[in-house]
Amino acid sequence: MPEPVDFYFDFSSPYGYLASTQIDALAAKHGRAVRWHPILLGAVFKVSGGAPLTTVPLKGEYAVRDMARCARLLGVPFKLPSKFPIPTQAPARLTLWARQPDDAGAKRLALALYRAYFADDRDISSPEVCADVAAACGFDRACAAAGMNDASVKDALKIEVEQAIERKVFGSPYFIVDGEPFWGADRLDQVERWMASGGW
Amino acid sequence: MPEPVDFYFDFSSPYGYLASTQIDALAAKHGRAVRWHPILLGAVFKVSGGAPLTTVPLKGEYAVRDMARCARLLGVPFKLPSKFPIPTQAPARLTLWARQPDDAGAKRLALALYRAYFADDRDISSPEVCADVAAACGFDRACAAAGMNDASVKDALKIEVEQAIERKVFGSPYFIVDGEPFWGADRLDQVERWMASGGW
Repeated sequence: MPEPVDFYFDFSSPYGYLASTQIDALAAKHGRAVRWHPILLGAVFKVSGGAPLTTVPLKGEYAVRDMARCARLLGVPFKLPSKFPIPTQAPARLTLWARQPDDAGAKRLALALYRAYFADDRDISSPEVCADVAAACGFDRACAAAGMNDASVKDALKIEVEQAIERKVFGSPYFIVDGEPFWGADRLDQVERWMASGGW
Repeated sequence: MPEPVDFYFDFSSPYGYLASTQIDALAAKHGRAVRWHPILLGAVFKVSGGAPLTTVPLKGEYAVRDMARCARLLGVPFKLPSKFPIPTQAPARLTLWARQPDDAGAKRLALALYRAYFADDRDISSPEVCADVAAACGFDRACAAAGMNDASVKDALKIEVEQAIERKVFGSPYFIVDGEPFWGADRLDQVERWMASGGW
Protein backbone atom coordinates (compact mmCIF):
# COMPACT_ATOMS: atom_id res chain seq x y z
CA MET A 1 0.00 0.00 0.00
CA PRO A 2 1.62 3.32 -1.00
CA GLU A 3 2.04 6.12 1.55
CA PRO A 4 -0.80 8.64 1.81
CA VAL A 5 -0.31 12.03 0.19
CA ASP A 6 -0.06 14.95 2.62
CA PHE A 7 -2.24 17.95 1.71
CA TYR A 8 -1.62 21.21 3.63
CA PHE A 9 -4.11 24.05 3.27
CA ASP A 10 -5.39 27.21 4.90
CA PHE A 11 -9.15 27.83 4.87
CA SER A 12 -8.54 31.37 3.60
CA SER A 13 -6.58 30.13 0.56
CA PRO A 14 -8.48 30.26 -2.77
CA TYR A 15 -6.08 27.87 -4.47
CA GLY A 16 -6.32 25.60 -1.42
CA TYR A 17 -10.08 25.54 -1.96
CA LEU A 18 -9.66 24.65 -5.63
CA ALA A 19 -7.19 21.88 -4.76
CA SER A 20 -9.49 20.49 -2.06
CA THR A 21 -12.08 19.71 -4.73
CA GLN A 22 -9.56 17.64 -6.72
CA ILE A 23 -6.92 15.97 -4.58
CA ASP A 24 -8.81 12.96 -3.19
CA ALA A 25 -10.11 11.83 -6.59
CA LEU A 26 -6.67 12.35 -8.11
CA ALA A 27 -4.95 10.31 -5.42
CA ALA A 28 -7.60 7.57 -5.50
CA LYS A 29 -6.83 6.99 -9.18
CA HIS A 30 -3.38 5.90 -8.03
CA GLY A 31 -4.52 3.90 -5.01
CA ARG A 32 -3.51 6.63 -2.57
CA ALA A 33 -5.22 8.05 0.47
CA VAL A 34 -4.81 11.75 1.36
CA ARG A 35 -4.10 13.19 4.81
CA TRP A 36 -5.64 16.66 5.10
CA HIS A 37 -3.75 19.17 7.25
CA PRO A 38 -5.51 22.47 7.97
CA ILE A 39 -2.83 25.02 8.89
CA LEU A 40 -2.58 28.76 9.60
CA LEU A 41 -0.69 30.56 6.86
CA GLY A 42 -0.26 33.60 9.10
CA ALA A 43 2.02 31.58 11.35
CA VAL A 44 3.88 30.16 8.36
CA PHE A 45 4.34 33.61 6.79
CA LYS A 46 6.13 34.76 9.96
CA VAL A 47 8.85 32.27 8.98
CA SER A 48 8.77 32.64 5.21
CA GLY A 49 7.97 36.35 4.95
CA GLY A 50 4.97 35.70 2.69
CA ALA A 51 1.95 37.95 2.41
CA PRO A 52 -1.69 37.41 1.43
CA LEU A 53 -1.66 37.24 -2.35
CA THR A 54 -4.34 39.83 -2.99
CA THR A 55 -2.47 42.48 -0.98
CA VAL A 56 0.53 42.45 -3.34
CA PRO A 57 0.53 45.32 -5.89
CA LEU A 58 -0.26 44.23 -9.49
CA LYS A 59 0.11 40.56 -8.60
CA GLY A 60 -2.91 40.77 -6.32
CA GLU A 61 -5.13 42.20 -9.04
CA TYR A 62 -3.97 39.49 -11.43
CA ALA A 63 -4.48 36.79 -8.79
CA VAL A 64 -8.15 37.67 -8.31
CA ARG A 65 -8.68 37.24 -12.05
CA ASP A 66 -6.62 34.05 -12.14
CA MET A 67 -8.49 32.44 -9.25
CA ALA A 68 -11.84 32.97 -10.93
CA ARG A 69 -10.49 31.74 -14.26
CA CYS A 70 -9.02 28.58 -12.71
CA ALA A 71 -12.29 27.90 -10.89
CA ARG A 72 -14.30 28.24 -14.11
CA LEU A 73 -11.93 25.84 -15.85
CA LEU A 74 -12.48 23.26 -13.08
CA GLY A 75 -16.23 23.91 -12.98
CA VAL A 76 -16.00 24.87 -9.30
CA PRO A 77 -18.21 27.72 -7.96
CA PHE A 78 -16.05 30.65 -6.82
CA LYS A 79 -16.53 34.23 -5.72
CA LEU A 80 -13.82 36.20 -3.89
CA PRO A 81 -15.39 36.61 -0.42
CA SER A 82 -16.29 40.14 0.66
CA LYS A 83 -14.10 39.65 3.75
CA PHE A 84 -10.71 38.35 2.60
CA PRO A 85 -8.36 37.10 3.91
CA ILE A 86 -9.70 35.95 7.28
CA PRO A 87 -8.23 34.27 10.37
CA THR A 88 -8.96 30.56 10.10
CA GLN A 89 -8.54 29.15 13.58
CA ALA A 90 -12.24 28.27 13.86
CA PRO A 91 -12.63 26.15 10.68
CA ALA A 92 -9.19 24.57 11.17
CA ARG A 93 -9.99 23.55 14.75
CA LEU A 94 -13.43 22.31 13.77
CA THR A 95 -11.90 20.09 11.08
CA LEU A 96 -9.36 18.68 13.54
CA TRP A 97 -12.11 18.07 16.09
CA ALA A 98 -14.15 16.14 13.50
CA ARG A 99 -11.10 14.17 12.35
CA GLN A 100 -10.59 12.40 15.67
CA PRO A 101 -13.43 9.95 15.25
CA ASP A 102 -14.12 10.26 11.53
CA ASP A 103 -11.58 11.21 8.87
CA ALA A 104 -14.06 10.99 5.96
CA GLY A 105 -16.59 13.11 7.86
CA ALA A 106 -13.89 15.69 8.59
CA LYS A 107 -13.11 15.97 4.88
CA ARG A 108 -16.79 16.43 4.01
CA LEU A 109 -16.93 19.13 6.67
CA ALA A 110 -13.76 20.83 5.38
CA LEU A 111 -15.19 20.86 1.84
CA ALA A 112 -18.44 22.34 3.16
CA LEU A 113 -16.53 25.03 5.10
CA TYR A 114 -14.49 25.93 2.02
CA ARG A 115 -17.67 26.08 -0.09
CA ALA A 116 -19.43 28.23 2.51
CA TYR A 117 -16.58 30.74 2.26
CA PHE A 118 -15.60 30.72 -1.41
CA ALA A 119 -18.94 29.92 -3.06
CA ASP A 120 -21.53 31.36 -0.63
CA ASP A 121 -19.53 34.26 0.87
CA ARG A 122 -20.18 33.17 4.46
CA ASP A 123 -17.62 34.38 7.01
CA ILE A 124 -16.13 31.13 8.33
CA SER A 125 -13.81 33.01 10.69
CA SER A 126 -16.90 33.04 12.94
CA PRO A 127 -17.25 29.99 15.22
CA GLU A 128 -21.04 30.42 14.97
CA VAL A 129 -20.98 30.11 11.19
CA CYS A 130 -18.64 27.12 11.48
CA ALA A 131 -21.02 25.40 13.89
CA ASP A 132 -23.91 26.04 11.48
CA VAL A 133 -21.96 24.43 8.65
CA ALA A 134 -21.15 21.45 10.89
CA ALA A 135 -24.82 21.05 11.76
CA ALA A 136 -25.77 21.13 8.08
CA CYS A 137 -23.20 18.36 7.55
CA GLY A 138 -24.93 16.17 10.14
CA PHE A 139 -22.75 16.90 13.18
CA ASP A 140 -24.30 17.79 16.50
CA ARG A 141 -24.15 21.58 16.59
CA ALA A 142 -23.54 21.93 20.32
CA CYS A 143 -20.79 19.28 20.29
CA ALA A 144 -19.12 20.99 17.33
CA ALA A 145 -19.27 24.41 18.99
CA ALA A 146 -17.77 22.99 22.18
CA GLY A 147 -15.23 20.88 20.27
CA MET A 148 -13.66 23.91 18.60
CA ASN A 149 -12.78 25.29 22.04
CA ASP A 150 -11.40 22.06 23.43
CA ALA A 151 -7.82 22.46 24.66
CA SER A 152 -6.73 19.23 22.97
CA VAL A 153 -8.10 20.50 19.64
CA LYS A 154 -6.29 23.83 20.03
CA ASP A 155 -3.11 21.88 20.76
CA ALA A 156 -3.69 19.66 17.74
CA LEU A 157 -3.76 22.76 15.49
CA LYS A 158 -0.57 24.12 17.06
CA ILE A 159 1.09 20.79 16.36
CA GLU A 160 -0.13 20.76 12.75
CA VAL A 161 1.31 24.24 12.18
CA GLU A 162 4.62 23.37 13.87
CA GLN A 163 4.97 20.20 11.85
CA ALA A 164 4.15 22.05 8.63
CA ILE A 165 6.89 24.60 9.36
CA GLU A 166 9.32 21.77 10.17
CA ARG A 167 8.49 20.23 6.80
CA LYS A 168 9.15 23.64 5.19
CA VAL A 169 5.59 24.19 4.04
CA PHE A 170 5.37 27.87 3.05
CA GLY A 171 2.10 28.17 1.17
CA SER A 172 -1.31 26.70 0.44
CA PRO A 173 -2.03 24.28 -1.10
CA TYR A 174 1.12 22.28 -0.47
CA PHE A 175 1.47 18.57 -1.16
CA ILE A 176 4.07 16.02 -0.14
CA VAL A 177 4.20 12.78 -2.12
CA ASP A 178 6.77 10.23 -0.92
CA GLY A 179 8.91 13.08 0.42
CA GLU A 180 8.62 15.22 -2.73
CA PRO A 181 7.10 18.69 -2.11
CA PHE A 182 4.72 20.42 -4.53
CA TRP A 183 3.34 23.92 -4.02
CA GLY A 184 0.24 25.28 -5.65
CA ALA A 185 -2.95 24.05 -7.30
CA ASP A 186 -1.06 24.38 -10.59
CA ARG A 187 1.22 21.53 -9.54
CA LEU A 188 -1.66 19.02 -9.33
CA ASP A 189 -0.68 17.64 -12.74
CA GLN A 190 2.85 17.01 -11.47
CA VAL A 191 1.48 15.50 -8.24
CA GLU A 192 -0.46 13.06 -10.40
CA ARG A 193 2.51 12.26 -12.63
CA TRP A 194 4.69 11.71 -9.55
CA MET A 195 2.17 9.23 -8.12
CA ALA A 196 1.92 7.46 -11.47
CA SER A 197 5.63 7.28 -12.21
CA GLY A 198 7.44 7.52 -8.87
CA GLY A 199 9.27 10.63 -10.08
CA TRP A 200 11.42 11.75 -12.98
CA MET B 1 -5.28 36.27 -38.85
CA PRO B 2 -5.44 36.21 -35.01
CA GLU B 3 -3.42 38.70 -32.97
CA PRO B 4 0.09 37.63 -31.94
CA VAL B 5 0.63 36.48 -28.37
CA ASP B 6 2.80 38.79 -26.24
CA PHE B 7 5.54 37.03 -24.27
CA TYR B 8 7.34 39.06 -21.59
CA PHE B 9 10.48 37.63 -20.00
CA ASP B 10 13.63 38.52 -18.11
CA PHE B 11 16.85 36.75 -19.07
CA SER B 12 17.50 35.96 -15.41
CA SER B 13 14.15 34.17 -15.00
CA PRO B 14 14.35 30.35 -14.89
CA TYR B 15 10.65 29.93 -15.64
CA GLY B 16 11.02 32.48 -18.45
CA TYR B 17 13.73 30.25 -19.89
CA LEU B 18 11.49 27.18 -19.67
CA ALA B 19 8.61 29.05 -21.32
CA SER B 20 10.88 30.36 -24.09
CA THR B 21 11.46 26.78 -25.22
CA GLN B 22 7.71 26.14 -25.56
CA ILE B 23 5.72 29.24 -26.47
CA ASP B 24 6.37 29.55 -30.22
CA ALA B 25 5.48 25.92 -30.96
CA LEU B 26 2.40 26.19 -28.77
CA ALA B 27 1.19 29.34 -30.50
CA ALA B 28 1.97 27.99 -33.96
CA LYS B 29 -0.41 25.07 -33.31
CA HIS B 30 -3.16 27.69 -33.15
CA GLY B 31 -1.97 29.80 -36.07
CA ARG B 32 -0.49 32.47 -33.81
CA ALA B 33 2.75 34.38 -33.94
CA VAL B 34 4.52 35.42 -30.72
CA ARG B 35 6.02 38.82 -29.94
CA TRP B 36 8.98 38.42 -27.57
CA HIS B 37 9.53 41.24 -25.08
CA PRO B 38 12.75 41.10 -23.05
CA ILE B 39 12.21 43.21 -19.92
CA LEU B 40 14.06 44.01 -16.68
CA LEU B 41 12.30 42.49 -13.68
CA GLY B 42 14.30 44.72 -11.33
CA ALA B 43 12.47 47.76 -12.73
CA VAL B 44 9.14 45.96 -12.52
CA PHE B 45 9.76 44.83 -8.93
CA LYS B 46 10.18 48.51 -7.92
CA VAL B 47 6.48 48.86 -8.79
CA SER B 48 5.17 45.48 -7.64
CA GLY B 49 7.43 44.94 -4.62
CA GLY B 50 8.54 41.54 -5.90
CA ALA B 51 11.84 39.90 -5.06
CA PRO B 52 14.05 37.34 -6.80
CA LEU B 53 12.40 34.01 -6.07
CA THR B 54 15.45 32.20 -4.73
CA THR B 55 16.05 34.89 -2.09
CA VAL B 56 12.71 34.22 -0.34
CA PRO B 57 13.02 32.00 2.77
CA LEU B 58 11.65 28.43 2.33
CA LYS B 59 10.01 29.34 -0.98
CA GLY B 60 13.43 29.97 -2.53
CA GLU B 61 14.71 26.55 -1.56
CA TYR B 62 11.57 24.93 -2.92
CA ALA B 63 11.78 26.98 -6.12
CA VAL B 64 15.26 25.71 -6.94
CA ARG B 65 13.96 22.15 -6.68
CA ASP B 66 10.82 22.97 -8.64
CA MET B 67 12.72 24.65 -11.50
CA ALA B 68 14.91 21.60 -11.99
CA ARG B 69 11.93 19.26 -11.77
CA CYS B 70 9.92 21.28 -14.33
CA ALA B 71 12.93 21.36 -16.66
CA ARG B 72 13.35 17.58 -16.43
CA LEU B 73 9.67 17.11 -17.20
CA LEU B 74 10.03 19.26 -20.33
CA GLY B 75 13.32 17.61 -21.32
CA VAL B 76 15.07 20.98 -21.21
CA PRO B 77 18.68 21.18 -19.91
CA PHE B 78 18.82 23.25 -16.70
CA LYS B 79 21.31 24.05 -13.98
CA LEU B 80 20.85 26.95 -11.56
CA PRO B 81 23.69 29.31 -12.64
CA SER B 82 26.49 29.89 -10.15
CA LYS B 83 25.80 33.64 -10.40
CA PHE B 84 22.05 34.18 -9.90
CA PRO B 85 20.17 36.42 -10.35
CA ILE B 86 22.06 38.76 -12.68
CA PRO B 87 21.38 42.16 -14.28
CA THR B 88 20.11 41.51 -17.79
CA GLN B 89 20.54 44.77 -19.68
CA ALA B 90 23.13 43.25 -22.02
CA PRO B 91 21.16 40.24 -23.31
CA ALA B 92 17.92 42.25 -23.42
CA ARG B 93 19.53 45.02 -25.49
CA LEU B 94 21.25 42.53 -27.76
CA THR B 95 17.93 40.84 -28.47
CA LEU B 96 16.27 44.16 -29.25
CA TRP B 97 19.18 45.13 -31.51
CA ALA B 98 18.83 41.86 -33.43
CA ARG B 99 15.07 42.23 -33.69
CA GLN B 100 15.18 45.38 -35.83
CA PRO B 101 16.09 43.63 -39.04
CA ASP B 102 15.26 40.02 -38.17
CA ASP B 103 12.62 38.88 -35.67
CA ALA B 104 13.28 35.15 -36.21
CA GLY B 105 17.02 35.70 -35.81
CA ALA B 106 16.41 37.64 -32.59
CA LYS B 107 14.43 34.73 -31.16
CA ARG B 108 17.17 32.24 -32.05
CA LEU B 109 19.62 34.57 -30.34
CA ALA B 110 17.38 34.93 -27.25
CA LEU B 111 17.09 31.14 -26.98
CA ALA B 112 20.88 30.82 -27.30
CA LEU B 113 21.42 33.46 -24.60
CA TYR B 114 18.99 31.70 -22.26
CA ARG B 115 20.70 28.38 -22.95
CA ALA B 116 24.14 29.87 -22.36
CA TYR B 117 22.98 31.04 -18.93
CA PHE B 118 20.72 28.23 -17.70
CA ALA B 119 22.29 25.21 -19.39
CA ASP B 120 25.97 26.18 -19.73
CA ASP B 121 26.38 28.48 -16.70
CA ARG B 122 27.84 31.34 -18.75
CA ASP B 123 27.44 34.80 -17.23
CA ILE B 124 25.29 36.61 -19.80
CA SER B 125 25.30 39.81 -17.75
CA SER B 126 28.65 40.35 -19.49
CA PRO B 127 28.43 42.16 -22.86
CA GLU B 128 31.50 40.17 -23.96
CA VAL B 129 29.77 36.84 -23.33
CA CYS B 130 26.65 38.13 -25.10
CA ALA B 131 28.70 39.14 -28.14
CA ASP B 132 30.29 35.67 -28.19
CA VAL B 133 26.85 34.06 -28.17
CA ALA B 134 25.74 36.37 -30.99
CA ALA B 135 28.80 35.42 -33.04
CA ALA B 136 28.07 31.71 -32.50
CA CYS B 137 24.54 32.41 -33.80
CA GLY B 138 25.92 33.86 -37.03
CA PHE B 139 25.78 37.57 -36.19
CA ASP B 140 28.77 39.79 -36.80
CA ARG B 141 30.48 40.01 -33.41
CA ALA B 142 31.67 43.61 -33.74
CA CYS B 143 28.24 44.81 -34.94
CA ALA B 144 26.54 42.99 -32.07
CA ALA B 145 28.94 44.45 -29.48
CA ALA B 146 28.39 47.96 -30.86
CA GLY B 147 24.64 47.43 -31.25
CA MET B 148 24.15 46.72 -27.55
CA ASN B 149 25.49 50.19 -26.78
CA ASP B 150 23.46 52.00 -29.38
CA ALA B 151 21.35 54.79 -27.87
CA SER B 152 18.30 53.73 -29.88
CA VAL B 153 18.60 50.16 -28.54
CA LYS B 154 18.90 51.42 -24.98
CA ASP B 155 15.79 53.51 -25.55
CA ALA B 156 13.97 50.53 -27.05
CA LEU B 157 14.57 48.57 -23.82
CA LYS B 158 13.34 51.47 -21.70
CA ILE B 159 10.19 51.57 -23.79
CA GLU B 160 9.67 47.81 -23.48
CA VAL B 161 9.92 48.05 -19.68
CA GLU B 162 7.61 51.06 -19.49
CA GLN B 163 5.02 49.39 -21.69
CA ALA B 164 5.23 46.19 -19.64
CA ILE B 165 4.57 48.16 -16.44
CA GLU B 166 1.67 49.96 -18.15
CA ARG B 167 0.24 46.58 -19.09
CA LYS B 168 0.65 45.51 -15.41
CA VAL B 169 3.24 42.84 -16.11
CA PHE B 170 4.74 41.92 -12.73
CA GLY B 171 6.67 38.73 -13.35
CA SER B 172 8.36 36.47 -15.86
CA PRO B 173 7.17 34.74 -17.93
CA TYR B 174 4.01 36.73 -18.57
CA PHE B 175 1.74 36.23 -21.56
CA ILE B 176 -1.09 38.31 -22.99
CA VAL B 177 -3.50 36.56 -25.35
CA ASP B 178 -6.22 38.79 -26.84
CA GLY B 179 -6.03 41.02 -23.76
CA GLU B 180 -6.10 38.13 -21.27
CA PRO B 181 -3.04 38.02 -18.96
CA PHE B 182 -1.34 34.80 -17.83
CA TRP B 183 1.59 34.66 -15.42
CA GLY B 184 4.00 31.78 -15.09
CA ALA B 185 5.25 28.82 -17.08
CA ASP B 186 2.59 26.79 -15.27
CA ARG B 187 -0.11 28.74 -17.12
CA LEU B 188 1.07 27.55 -20.55
CA ASP B 189 -1.73 24.97 -20.58
CA GLN B 190 -4.29 27.73 -20.01
CA VAL B 191 -2.60 29.93 -22.64
CA GLU B 192 -3.08 27.08 -25.09
CA ARG B 193 -6.70 26.49 -24.08
CA TRP B 194 -7.41 30.21 -24.40
CA MET B 195 -6.01 30.26 -27.93
CA ALA B 196 -8.01 27.14 -28.83
CA SER B 197 -11.31 28.24 -27.32
CA GLY B 198 -11.25 32.03 -27.15
CA GLY B 199 -11.75 31.86 -23.39
CA TRP B 200 -14.08 30.30 -20.85
